[in-house]
Amino acid sequence: MAAPSFDFRSRWARAASLMERRGIDALFLMKPANLAYLTGDGRPCALGLLTRDLRCVVAVPASDLRSVRMASAATDIRVFRSEEEMFHGFRDVLREHRLSEATIALEKNFFDAALFEVFTAHILPKARVVAAAPVLSRLRMLKEPAEVECLKAAARVADEGMAAAVHAVRAGVRETDVAGEAEHAMRKAGAEGWASGTYVASGWRSAMAHGPASLKSIAVGEAVQVHVAPIVSGYTVDLCRTLLVGRAPEEIARATRAYVEAQERGIAAAAPGAPLMGIDAAMASSLEHAGFEGAFLRPVFHGVGIEHEEAPIPGGHAVIHGEEKIEQVESGMVLAIGNCGIYRESFGVRMEDTVWVTEQGPVSLTRHPKTLNA
Amino acid sequence: MAAPSFDFRSRWARAASLMERRGIDALFLMKPANLAYLTGDGRPCALGLLTRDLRCVVAVPASDLRSVRMASAATDIRVFRSEEEMFHGFRDVLREHRLSEATIALEKNFFDAALFEVFTAHILPKARVVAAAPVLSRLRMLKEPAEVECLKAAARVADEGMAAAVHAVRAGVRETDVAGEAEHAMRKAGAEGWASGTYVASGWRSAMAHGPASLKSIAVGEAVQVHVAPIVSGYTVDLCRTLLVGRAPEEIARATRAYVEAQERGIAAAAPGAPLMGIDAAMASSLEHAGFEGAFLRPVFHGVGIEHEEAPIPGGHAVIHGEEKIEQVESGMVLAIGNCGIYRESFGVRMEDTVWVTEQGPVSLTRHPKTLNA
Repeated sequence: MAAPSFDFRSRWARAASLMERRGIDALFLMKPANLAYLTGDGRPCALGLLTRDLRCVVAVPASDLRSVRMASAATDIRVFRSEEEMFHGFRDVLREHRLSEATIALEKNFFDAALFEVFTAHILPKARVVAAAPVLSRLRMLKEPAEVECLKAAARVADEGMAAAVHAVRAGVRETDVAGEAEHAMRKAGAEGWASGTYVASGWRSAMAHGPASLKSIAVGEAVQVHVAPIVSGYTVDLCRTLLVGRAPEEIARATRAYVEAQERGIAAAAPGAPLMGIDAAMASSLEHAGFEGAFLRPVFHGVGIEHEEAPIPGGHAVIHGEEKIEQVESGMVLAIGNCGIYRESFGVRMEDTVWVTEQGPVSLTRHPKTLNA
Repeated sequence: MAAPSFDFRSRWARAASLMERRGIDALFLMKPANLAYLTGDGRPCALGLLTRDLRCVVAVPASDLRSVRMASAATDIRVFRSEEEMFHGFRDVLREHRLSEATIALEKNFFDAALFEVFTAHILPKARVVAAAPVLSRLRMLKEPAEVECLKAAARVADEGMAAAVHAVRAGVRETDVAGEAEHAMRKAGAEGWASGTYVASGWRSAMAHGPASLKSIAVGEAVQVHVAPIVSGYTVDLCRTLLVGRAPEEIARATRAYVEAQERGIAAAAPGAPLMGIDAAMASSLEHAGFEGAFLRPVFHGVGIEHEEAPIPGGHAVIHGEEKIEQVESGMVLAIGNCGIYRESFGVRMEDTVWVTEQGPVSLTRHPKTLNA
């Protein structure tokens, strides 16, 4: 697809309006996903500042000046030659903009606690520091049409990767080899990288909540969970399928039917205006009805976009992720539904899709069929 | 290679001795790299506690109990079914062990600032909280022989990936395709995943400090920076080479010669007992002598092992990474030397190797030749 074109000035205006409501003078940005969203350039090791009166400063490695000029919507681009210069230089930027004693919103769910202490003490000693997530997550949570195009492209690449994995899964093949084939197919289809490691977890390993590919060889009769998360045009999707090598033991087939049914109820609950936790309730009651109470983990869904996990994050998980609780499903959200699965002693089953919430209801962007046949 | 076998009890004893010296009663662990080092199992979404009297508790997703029992050296394994349960359950663990008012070391350079606030307020309201990095980095910084075997295996896989990249680089090929071939070869050689995205940055993109593969096609006469970081047996290495398609313009060839010379001087400076910042000084003076003052970024090296960047982190960068400053090169350190490169307006050159510091001096584990010929 052609490079996406986003209206950054309009994003800044929306950010400024949220900042005004919360008494924030400027957003200090360090998280690549937020820099990408607000400037068009989300390289690591960069800093940004967006003021309420729409000045946008970024500081980048000196080596990167030329490419940042090509990519960034920032109004002022500074450079540094070391991490020390990177942070100290920003103290001067704040002084120039008369923001040393202002209310500055920081990405408290990105900064590590050690750096946060050093940073607030040395760079922002007199500022009032508040959390940036309520502004940034609110903005990024509702996807614009151009973002949905990127997500559709990522979903197509994920589907290609899953098809390659299905083709590669057979007895005697190592999990890493299946991951290699899936990644190779996604690279050919245009993947720029991975938002999460490729999971290939077979047999007893499929019972683990997180199953990056290992050197284990796949055996006949095993369930194989495959999870891919390619990055395309800066956006990612979640796609997980459980495959089976040979004939499925009845308990695996039954768990799979139950999980597909539950996931589909979860997807159907993602209608604009419905309570956000209704997705959780729909999946949980379906799984409990099928006799799988206590056999699944939470959260069963989360937002996805520039990041592998982003707002909305459901319920109490939001607090742990430094995010605000969101009450309602809204048109424009993109959700990974089916996160976590049914876990038994000797196997696990999971199907996860990336779903776009439209005015007309939920639309799955990932489309690989949900069958067990590898 | 066969699965590595580590002596966890001996690691715990060394940890306890460092804890005693610093008045720490227990290490609270959440960072997968630290959990892997102290228990043999570094899955994400797990918590651990190592007390000074050598009790080791971990809490994992309920789904993972069986596989954690197989992999973990912990003396007590608990389970949870959601992130909320995960953290709240640990409050009870602290109470049982009479540690609610003790001195607990947290991974302050891993916890995000938002979670750190919630966690200290709700889970450790009465504890004295200190940083865990001084204990954990000191332990992990000096590699045991069994760890060096893992690092050698990862270096062999990285060399295979680089050879595949060299084979794939030619005019008209996209950067993502080169990354795909390198990753595919590393998967076949046994890579379990990637500690960093695969960088393939050609032409003007090679001038960027960080260059994940993009859809840009490679052209004749361009420099192409390729960087790979496979994970093998839980350990990773850094390997970067700059290749050239066709005949090298003289300025690129000259910069390459200068960078290889500087990097080799940096490697030679990594001798046990020498000042750690001597590596930086050796590279910097060599680059300045060759006329490249101001054309390179810092840090020029860092530790590598379970993580892509770990202790020792040089100079002022250590503070930013929440690590202690380390003064001397020590036998057992493993360092990525040549990090960052020479950056010019239209191209960049970088060569980075993973170097093991032995009693007899530095030994490069990554071995791909340093020539420009793709």
